[in-house]
Amino acid sequence: MNSFGSKFRISIFGESHGTAIGVVIDGVPPGVELSEDDLRGDIARRKSGARGTTQRKEADVPYILSGTYNGRTTGAPLTVLFHNKNTVSGDYKNLADHPRPSHADFVAARKYLGFNDPRGGGHFSGRITLPLVAAGAVAKKLLKGISIEARTVAIGGSSDPVQFDRIVSAALADGDSVGGIVECRATGLPVGLGEPFFDSVEGLVSHLVFAIPAVRGIEFGNGFGAAALRGSQNNDMIVSESGLTATNNAGGINGGVTNGNDMVFRVAIKPTPSIALPQQTFNTRTGRVETLEIRGRHDACIALRAPVVVEAALAIALAQFI
Amino acid sequence: MNSFGSKFRISIFGESHGTAIGVVIDGVPPGVELSEDDLRGDIARRKSGARGTTQRKEADVPYILSGTYNGRTTGAPLTVLFHNKNTVSGDYKNLADHPRPSHADFVAARKYLGFNDPRGGGHFSGRITLPLVAAGAVAKKLLKGISIEARTVAIGGSSDPVQFDRIVSAALADGDSVGGIVECRATGLPVGLGEPFFDSVEGLVSHLVFAIPAVRGIEFGNGFGAAALRGSQNNDMIVSESGLTATNNAGGINGGVTNGNDMVFRVAIKPTPSIALPQQTFNTRTGRVETLEIRGRHDACIALRAPVVVEAALAIALAQFI
Amino acid sequence: MNSFGSKFRISIFGESHGTAIGVVIDGVPPGVELSEDDLRGDIARRKSGARGTTQRKEADVPYILSGTYNGRTTGAPLTVLFHNKNTVSGDYKNLADHPRPSHADFVAARKYLGFNDPRGGGHFSGRITLPLVAAGAVAKKLLKGISIEARTVAIGGSSDPVQFDRIVSAALADGDSVGGIVECRATGLPVGLGEPFFDSVEGLVSHLVFAIPAVRGIEFGNGFGAAALRGSQNNDMIVSESGLTATNNAGGINGGVTNGNDMVFRVAIKPTPSIALPQQTFNTRTGRVETLEIRGRHDACIALRAPVVVEAALAIALAQFI
Amino acid sequence: MNSFGSKFRISIFGESHGTAIGVVIDGVPPGVELSEDDLRGDIARRKSGARGTTQRKEADVPYILSGTYNGRTTGAPLTVLFHNKNTVSGDYKNLADHPRPSHADFVAARKYLGFNDPRGGGHFSGRITLPLVAAGAVAKKLLKGISIEARTVAIGGSSDPVQFDRIVSAALADGDSVGGIVECRATGLPVGLGEPFFDSVEGLVSHLVFAIPAVRGIEFGNGFGAAALRGSQNNDMIVSESGLTATNNAGGINGGVTNGNDMVFRVAIKPTPSIALPQQTFNTRTGRVETLEIRGRHDACIALRAPVVVEAALAIALAQFI
Repeated sequence: MNSFGSKFRISIFGESHGTAIGVVIDGVPPGVELSEDDLRGDIARRKSGARGTTQRKEADVPYILSGTYNGRTTGAPLTVLFHNKNTVSGDYKNLADHPRPSHADFVAARKYLGFNDPRGGGHFSGRITLPLVAAGAVAKKLLKGISIEARTVAIGGSSDPVQFDRIVSAALADGDSVGGIVECRATGLPVGLGEPFFDSVEGLVSHLVFAIPAVRGIEFGNGFGAAALRGSQNNDMIVSESGLTATNNAGGINGGVTNGNDMVFRVAIKPTPSIALPQQTFNTRTGRVETLEIRGRHDACIALRAPVVVEAALAIALAQFI
Repeated sequence: MNSFGSKFRISIFGESHGTAIGVVIDGVPPGVELSEDDLRGDIARRKSGARGTTQRKEADVPYILSGTYNGRTTGAPLTVLFHNKNTVSGDYKNLADHPRPSHADFVAARKYLGFNDPRGGGHFSGRITLPLVAAGAVAKKLLKGISIEARTVAIGGSSDPVQFDRIVSAALADGDSVGGIVECRATGLPVGLGEPFFDSVEGLVSHLVFAIPAVRGIEFGNGFGAAALRGSQNNDMIVSESGLTATNNAGGINGGVTNGNDMVFRVAIKPTPSIALPQQTFNTRTGRVETLEIRGRHDACIALRAPVVVEAALAIALAQFI
Repeated sequence: MNSFGSKFRISIFGESHGTAIGVVIDGVPPGVELSEDDLRGDIARRKSGARGTTQRKEADVPYILSGTYNGRTTGAPLTVLFHNKNTVSGDYKNLADHPRPSHADFVAARKYLGFNDPRGGGHFSGRITLPLVAAGAVAKKLLKGISIEARTVAIGGSSDPVQFDRIVSAALADGDSVGGIVECRATGLPVGLGEPFFDSVEGLVSHLVFAIPAVRGIEFGNGFGAAALRGSQNNDMIVSESGLTATNNAGGINGGVTNGNDMVFRVAIKPTPSIALPQQTFNTRTGRVETLEIRGRHDACIALRAPVVVEAALAIALAQFI
Repeated sequence: MNSFGSKFRISIFGESHGTAIGVVIDGVPPGVELSEDDLRGDIARRKSGARGTTQRKEADVPYILSGTYNGRTTGAPLTVLFHNKNTVSGDYKNLADHPRPSHADFVAARKYLGFNDPRGGGHFSGRITLPLVAAGAVAKKLLKGISIEARTVAIGGSSDPVQFDRIVSAALADGDSVGGIVECRATGLPVGLGEPFFDSVEGLVSHLVFAIPAVRGIEFGNGFGAAALRGSQNNDMIVSESGLTATNNAGGINGGVTNGNDMVFRVAIKPTPSIALPQQTFNTRTGRVETLEIRGRHDACIALRAPVVVEAALAIALAQFI
């Protein structure tokens, strides 16, 4: 299903090359000041992160279709729409026959019996993260006193930000792409958000984060590092009434519930599967492995534009508990 | 909330030292042969993995309370109950004042305003994974042609299975615990399970996996490794009509949907926070950091008993799509 | 919340005098032929039923914004949009102070702390049944072999269709409105739709039917009449292998599940609360009971345009089980 | 599905002649005083209403299996269990072949492919209203300041309470049963409970009420009576700042939301389909219409014991909004 959440429920719709994409948000309380201007900052961050040769040019102008009146939310469903303008749909018929490796082309065609919209990936497109970012911007407004910040902390194996631009440029020059890691931190969280078992903070955050195309992993606090430690090394000693801990290996969560310390998690982003380099892969029409060459646009490093999407996922998850 | 799923919906209940724990499962089709015997194998695997000094002795006998008739499921809700027998509740009053580091003691007391059942962790106990394993055993019966297998692939930083026993014993001898990594693989999956966006396979699996106490991270396919690669290295070339790929970096999933290859993911398990070593941590009664010494039982390495729980999480997630 | 359903999930949005209203439908299978033309028949029926002096003129043109490609559904969320054109928002400030009796004005202002959109009733408007009708038309296409038909069977206490027009005209001439009863029948239903307890057929149908503004009651089969009978009079004797019954007092449902006979239910619709006659009611600004006169449009008999909305509610409910 | 609700979520399980029946309730806040004693009053009311020849004798003793500690709720799932003791399962094999008219026997066998538990109706039994009553008793404790009271207002067509006993006795003497009407009233409701559209108060209440076996209809306020009125007769004039109305035709609800007046609704209950009189109905084994004679127990008038079940449905519905 394409909806998520109970208290702050989002329903996402649209295709990459359709008329428009958007999101309906249910559960926004009345009286919150909100206009398209409140969404533009995050939308611009998502866009500016893009790095590629012939990247699609879209204005990404949000339009609030319902749910506000006189500049404030009404309590009724809030709908944000983005019109698709610059949609030059190339030879997607060809991709349906000759699916791109590690892309959703193959599974989409099988799952939807060939009826999926193949243009630009259709509903499987990374473009659908745009309404997610808009929903995240709305959610952030509801999280009073909580600040959320994500950034790219590794690209192509390097954790030196100075190198990031060079690494991406080199990949781009080769017609290739690179992966990276995004780290997200939330401060100002109260103790007690999250539910034991199925609505743990990690459960909801990871559920949403894996909706972002290209995400391959998530870890909270010291994450996979904790697997190599002893309890005496990993435990965070509480040092004050408020629950402050001397270390924060837990990344701000115990038993699925926020413990009042900063929440920290990292997300692994794979390199874009769409690359300009020729690839050998199966052609279902000819029944043979053949060379596939993809012309035109590709994003060389999704990890650069992913931070604001990861922030959105966290904000939407936390909005379920506030 | 303590329920999960739409098509195969589970509701978990009970406390570590209460009368009983259990699970209600809705959505089991009628006519499936099922008795307590079908649950015993997985239950025994969960138990035998335990390694610790004074580990609680429980028979872990499952009792099917509703939903079967003449040895087959009826289509009505299936309830599995486990009676708690060996519950020696120690001085949990003390733990409420002096919460264990990196344990749910502190957040549970705050979130539930001091009304939580503190005995053995109450509803936050690792014991609650027992009904999860039972639900997983039921789910596996519904996944015809699909086999699921998880195993511990690293302990305390070592990926050499020969060393595992020694590493755990050493930690135990020191009154300490160690973390580890569990890898899970499913074979026989059809193409097309999972939904784009919020009910991606990874989204549901991770949501459930983070319900398992002590899990700190999850990665699918090559996971965090993908973040260091280029697209040309990471892409899985399709080699046949069925969607078989030459490599399986994707771990069997593209666009949130199974692609017909083996599904593979890894889970990071932290060392048990309950250790015998004295720890310095805040005492809310005295208002000072003081030495905490925990007597009695502790599990030295949850990662050894976690594989069957991880399998259950996967089986329950897949049962949403079958 | 403004969404409903699990298998066929609808999310409704928009306000009476906003830019547009619409619905996102999740769970439509791929490959179903669908265009705006498929929606026009039901939309026209909803419209033509209107009877009133200065009824708003809206083209009610549906626009499928997402979820179709080459004239067929894709399996991705289907969005239908209706632009509001003819929105002359009168003095709604006045209605906020002087709420119409038996209308949502008062509760909307209180519930949403005065931030609700009061123009034309905002999100509480009967106009929001338009996307419901569109969703119903889509649902009907999925219910192969099942036909659904509702009609107005009583107006203002008369069950003689010949009198209906005269009764409505008389009310209209008096600046008043009248209530009525709608009966809905579905044929071709298989045995076994519906779940025991909370997702009984009656449970889902009634849940949806009460989303239609002005509905005050619902009864299945002989309904309230059954309360006056003995079991020997009310029981429907089964006469064939297929489950056909000699009588159909049950209205096609036993134990919450369809029994293969025609499904029949009736819905009570109150008279429109918006009338032209002066009414004495409380003015929150002056703190006194004062005369309220509503100028302009009102629909004299909702019961005339309700049948297609009732059909939509039934179709959407049944689509949860197909 | 056998669960309902989001904020106060109940999952019901068990069969009439199984080991036990019960309910898991998620969403009970911590710190509420609760013991089995709090449930006994409503349970006794449900039981004492029974009127029949050889009514099953069950102690109906509730047992709180989880979710309380030291006499208060913990915030974890609350489970209430009822053991079935007096289960003399007769010749249900016969009923599977020769299904009782207007009973769930036929649809249950078809829907569950013959694997349903037929003893005493299995999961379709009226006995399953017992955990519903227990959940209702818990919900009532959460509805501070709100009182709920239902009573039987008509039996077999008579609304004279003096006649009720005679009417039921006469039916019983004839081996027959009678229907009736239950009216429910809630006082002390704040303005603003309920959501527009799909989670209207009427939508949730009716959804739950139709989970009660034998319910055929529901009407709010003047209900079906409103269909015969004009707007000027039906409208409730507001007379005070608090929203008090001079009349209460709306039954305390406008636009799906409580308006601060008493909430009133009526429920039609059909006569028990299980009667002692011989009935002609289809025998699937012989393929002929044959005489069916049911020996033993039957409840002559469900409407007498239904009030407390209707109260439970209302309390559970309201608990979604509090």
